[in-house]
Amino acid sequence: MSSKRLRAAVVGASGYAGSELVRLLLDHPSVEPSIVTSGRSAGKRLTDECPWLYTDLVLSPFEPTSLEVDVVFLAQESGFAMDHAPGLAKRCKVVDLSADFRLSDLDVYRSTYKIEHRAPGTTASYGLPELVARDGIAGASLVANPGCYPTATLLALMPLVRAGVIGGVPIVDAKSGVSGAGRSRQETDYLFTEITGGFKAYAAVGHRHTPEIEQMTGAPVRFTPHLLPTARGLQATVHVPVKTSLAELKTIFQEAYAGERFIRIVEQPPSTKQVVGSNRCDIYVGFDERTQMSLVISVIDNLVKGAAGQAIQNMNIMLGLDEDAGLPLHGVWP
Amino acid sequence: MSSKRLRAAVVGASGYAGSELVRLLLDHPSVEPSIVTSGRSAGKRLTDECPWLYTDLVLSPFEPTSLEVDVVFLAQESGFAMDHAPGLAKRCKVVDLSADFRLSDLDVYRSTYKIEHRAPGTTASYGLPELVARDGIAGASLVANPGCYPTATLLALMPLVRAGVIGGVPIVDAKSGVSGAGRSRQETDYLFTEITGGFKAYAAVGHRHTPEIEQMTGAPVRFTPHLLPTARGLQATVHVPVKTSLAELKTIFQEAYAGERFIRIVEQPPSTKQVVGSNRCDIYVGFDERTQMSLVISVIDNLVKGAAGQAIQNMNIMLGLDEDAGLPLHGVWP
Amino acid sequence: MSSKRLRAAVVGASGYAGSELVRLLLDHPSVEPSIVTSGRSAGKRLTDECPWLYTDLVLSPFEPTSLEVDVVFLAQESGFAMDHAPGLAKRCKVVDLSADFRLSDLDVYRSTYKIEHRAPGTTASYGLPELVARDGIAGASLVANPGCYPTATLLALMPLVRAGVIGGVPIVDAKSGVSGAGRSRQETDYLFTEITGGFKAYAAVGHRHTPEIEQMTGAPVRFTPHLLPTARGLQATVHVPVKTSLAELKTIFQEAYAGERFIRIVEQPPSTKQVVGSNRCDIYVGFDERTQMSLVISVIDNLVKGAAGQAIQNMNIMLGLDEDAGLPLHGVWP
Amino acid sequence: MSSKRLRAAVVGASGYAGSELVRLLLDHPSVEPSIVTSGRSAGKRLTDECPWLYTDLVLSPFEPTSLEVDVVFLAQESGFAMDHAPGLAKRCKVVDLSADFRLSDLDVYRSTYKIEHRAPGTTASYGLPELVARDGIAGASLVANPGCYPTATLLALMPLVRAGVIGGVPIVDAKSGVSGAGRSRQETDYLFTEITGGFKAYAAVGHRHTPEIEQMTGAPVRFTPHLLPTARGLQATVHVPVKTSLAELKTIFQEAYAGERFIRIVEQPPSTKQVVGSNRCDIYVGFDERTQMSLVISVIDNLVKGAAGQAIQNMNIMLGLDEDAGLPLHGVWP
Repeated sequence: MSSKRLRAAVVGASGYAGSELVRLLLDHPSVEPSIVTSGRSAGKRLTDECPWLYTDLVLSPFEPTSLEVDVVFLAQESGFAMDHAPGLAKRCKVVDLSADFRLSDLDVYRSTYKIEHRAPGTTASYGLPELVARDGIAGASLVANPGCYPTATLLALMPLVRAGVIGGVPIVDAKSGVSGAGRSRQETDYLFTEITGGFKAYAAVGHRHTPEIEQMTGAPVRFTPHLLPTARGLQATVHVPVKTSLAELKTIFQEAYAGERFIRIVEQPPSTKQVVGSNRCDIYVGFDERTQMSLVISVIDNLVKGAAGQAIQNMNIMLGLDEDAGLPLHGVWP
Repeated sequence: MSSKRLRAAVVGASGYAGSELVRLLLDHPSVEPSIVTSGRSAGKRLTDECPWLYTDLVLSPFEPTSLEVDVVFLAQESGFAMDHAPGLAKRCKVVDLSADFRLSDLDVYRSTYKIEHRAPGTTASYGLPELVARDGIAGASLVANPGCYPTATLLALMPLVRAGVIGGVPIVDAKSGVSGAGRSRQETDYLFTEITGGFKAYAAVGHRHTPEIEQMTGAPVRFTPHLLPTARGLQATVHVPVKTSLAELKTIFQEAYAGERFIRIVEQPPSTKQVVGSNRCDIYVGFDERTQMSLVISVIDNLVKGAAGQAIQNMNIMLGLDEDAGLPLHGVWP
Repeated sequence: MSSKRLRAAVVGASGYAGSELVRLLLDHPSVEPSIVTSGRSAGKRLTDECPWLYTDLVLSPFEPTSLEVDVVFLAQESGFAMDHAPGLAKRCKVVDLSADFRLSDLDVYRSTYKIEHRAPGTTASYGLPELVARDGIAGASLVANPGCYPTATLLALMPLVRAGVIGGVPIVDAKSGVSGAGRSRQETDYLFTEITGGFKAYAAVGHRHTPEIEQMTGAPVRFTPHLLPTARGLQATVHVPVKTSLAELKTIFQEAYAGERFIRIVEQPPSTKQVVGSNRCDIYVGFDERTQMSLVISVIDNLVKGAAGQAIQNMNIMLGLDEDAGLPLHGVWP
Repeated sequence: MSSKRLRAAVVGASGYAGSELVRLLLDHPSVEPSIVTSGRSAGKRLTDECPWLYTDLVLSPFEPTSLEVDVVFLAQESGFAMDHAPGLAKRCKVVDLSADFRLSDLDVYRSTYKIEHRAPGTTASYGLPELVARDGIAGASLVANPGCYPTATLLALMPLVRAGVIGGVPIVDAKSGVSGAGRSRQETDYLFTEITGGFKAYAAVGHRHTPEIEQMTGAPVRFTPHLLPTARGLQATVHVPVKTSLAELKTIFQEAYAGERFIRIVEQPPSTKQVVGSNRCDIYVGFDERTQMSLVISVIDNLVKGAAGQAIQNMNIMLGLDEDAGLPLHGVWP
């Protein structure tokens, strides 16, 4: 611990993404979570809100002008970062976990999030390291951390897009654990009693992550999200008409992710559970000859590779640290 | 209870489908579960194996020649019914819950179940009442009760097939609770610890329910099953390229199921949980204009409409009783 | 259904106890749920709020003066019934599921529920049929339906109290599914994500059900409730120092509950799951010779025998119907 | 990783305790899991059996004479270690996770585990560091790692025993996640379908962990275990008649555990979930004046502080490393 010399602030530290950031940073070899903020709970100990953590940190209000840190993580609802990220990015590295800087077309942002963008000129790098040029992340002051659904979907889909083998509209049947909804959604729909023992689709047509996915694929995608009765874990089952063979498909994925520490091509359909707590994305590649349809299944922990872990991966790249520093590789099972 | 005058036998009464049959029959107005059999547990009280039931029934061995009942339910693994159903069907009504008599093409049966069919000349009626001619069920001595996946899939898909609006290969992304695997699958994969908190696909290409589905659709279907961390409940999310509109789609379904007591067209994507314990199938109809893709979601309780409930529905038709006698309409929630 | 001739009103029909009342009444042979009310959702169809039900009922506002029914169920928070039950009870039978009329000592009521009682002169019968004189219930206009914890605890404890074998303070270590908290508790603590995979005690000292228990036992009880990561089900593990033997203990319970249709003495520690959906209470009786301590374990479905089912059992007695009319005996498993 | 210089063997690496040992050792700063063995799966990659891990390790058969390591963890059923630990302990450090060396009275061992002890003269140190002299562990060749129930129970109970304030038989009402049963218990009782949504006691009188607890308390304890529908997590709710006050109780615990990194006294009843993945034991201290009964609640992760984590804690002490090296402090939530 004594060797830690970089300081981080986590804005929104008592939410699920925020507290996961704190958890991972507390064990990070080079970066310390020095400041943790909360709108509602400023003044309380962090452990009052998050008794699973083991720390003396006290929650403070968010005071952007007095933040003296090397990196700021913004883990708030969309609409918050646009007011603060541009200013902060002049003084330190910023990773925004909301949607505010993910979409380059602000008309799409407005129609998707029902908010007028108030920082239209700001440049951000899209932080999906395995699929973008890492130089862009390394040189950026502000990184837009991808959404959980787009992360899993794009990791399963982009190798096919880039290989040029897609012969029709990809159908993404995605399933997420409930923590994706956040910790402050105190609605009947998210009560334990309503979720346990059940499974359902939601936002069945027109989910707001669709534009983020299509911005990278450059072509329409049919995206349907479902809610799993689990806390963590996200699977994208991607059905794509392709003109190819199983052998070629496997080669496409192996080459696309050669040397990627957090991507693993697996031989059996993976359980979401095998990546819980890990920054990995496990990918299964299948092919049905009868229907000429490929089946690519990716699993991530929506709070790690789908949020806090990927944010730290981006931070590592931005700060010139080892890309995998402080990031768990193993899932917690059972 | 005193008015009960018909007698039923449940063969395999301590499994999940069998014990669900007993549970429903114990509350049935006209039919009594008089004989309950078990290979492993003959001689024990049924409640020793199934403490959730409230009955004095004792498990007996299966002795087909001495069964004096009005109807026999065969709730055993595939390969059992083919040896016994033909003989039993000469003396009483028989509902077989296995796959033995579902497929009319015995070559397909052999390649799917890896068993040579030993009763090739036997005629059975496929018992999916909402999609077949009920006269066939009413007049049959032997009914093949459909699989749980085919039930949910076909109820979501056949109205589109019959309306002639399908413009490509349907993609069925299906999810089932674990009870579909049965009670005797004592394998690591089905332990509580391996399943809870996770979700995965299995038999990702080539699941054995595919031929049963295609036998009715008459065209290829891309079918992928997944395992939900729930005991009961099954959802089929059916993605179909269509040449139509949302309004026409809804009309197709409303007309297809007009007057059907167990089918309900719903306005919100349904949770599997809302049909747990019920013989209903709730169906949601959606359409994505951008991709010209319809999204039909059906939910059933795999042990009720997907097994024991549908078996009793078939029995009611075969015995000339009210089709909904003894069948729960409401789900058990929360 | 055509033979139904009695009418019931359910006040608070979209909550968990209320909707369970409606579910059971829809299948009751003699009583129809004619009026269903909701404060927040009046005007909506009941199925909009409760999609697991299958009914055309529409939620109405609560208008006590115009209720023309044979029985009213009040399924509201404590503090509501005291204003309405006395007036209603002059015109029809009333079963109150809140705590308002459970405690005869109004000072205890005040200190427990932090509400001044506004109907101090009202007489109600405590509706735990297996432990009180049924004549009292049969003749009452107003029945106070017991709490879920007191129901399970008293059924496990009172035979020992009445047999006079208790030699010390009973320790009740109780565990309840989350539905006991109700459907309108939209607090972080009851989110799926906070509950799943965990277990904890709450109100560890001084839970408000303690006085209700002690009112019947007449002596102090040490009561600790815990929250199970299940929707339904409640277990009371009751540790009691006794001067007796295992054989005598079993006799005490068998005699206490001889002829009771909803109580079953079982030979193995029961799972809460075996009574889910049922109005049964299964009781296991154990004894540890080394420490001269008896171990009595009772399980109920907190929404059935612990709320709606027991309320209907009381209604049946009040209206002169068969005590078990419309009440499920079997659990729903798996 | 390059600085790792000590080698460990994990015998039984594909079970739950074994694979958790591997997971923690893979991230340990000084010790490498060099050899991983499995009886059934020798020759397979560890990730074939444990896809949540990220490693190239291959499972080998257990060959005790050729093990060239600094420490061996034996994670096998009781009855295995007694044959191998004495020989191994002459050449390296040994931590046994079974019951073989926990009980000093071999008559008690025989009557509890139904096995004749075949290594009666072997000396082992009981490895519960917070409650025994650490010198004993540091100097031992063989450490008996405590059971999960005794760990949680004794951490909650021993401060009261040592303070001399206990005035009657302690009642330990304990609840464990299902992983405590191990990964090879392929019995109906441990299927997902049988466990989910339920809760029950087992071995209600006479559980085999009772003697291990009483060996340290020196007085009878009434111990009742229950099975939680969770994978991990264990709670001991300890009810003890005491002659003292709440203030004194809190002081007793604060003094007993002053400076202990893995013990935290908490102000609210803890959820088992807040220690999942962590080597912590969180303890809540309550007191009921009316009944003069203290209520002490401890929570641990049964696979970490209750098994693999405590084994590594013992290893750290035995090898002269920092006691908390490689041991997670934070829980994984939600």
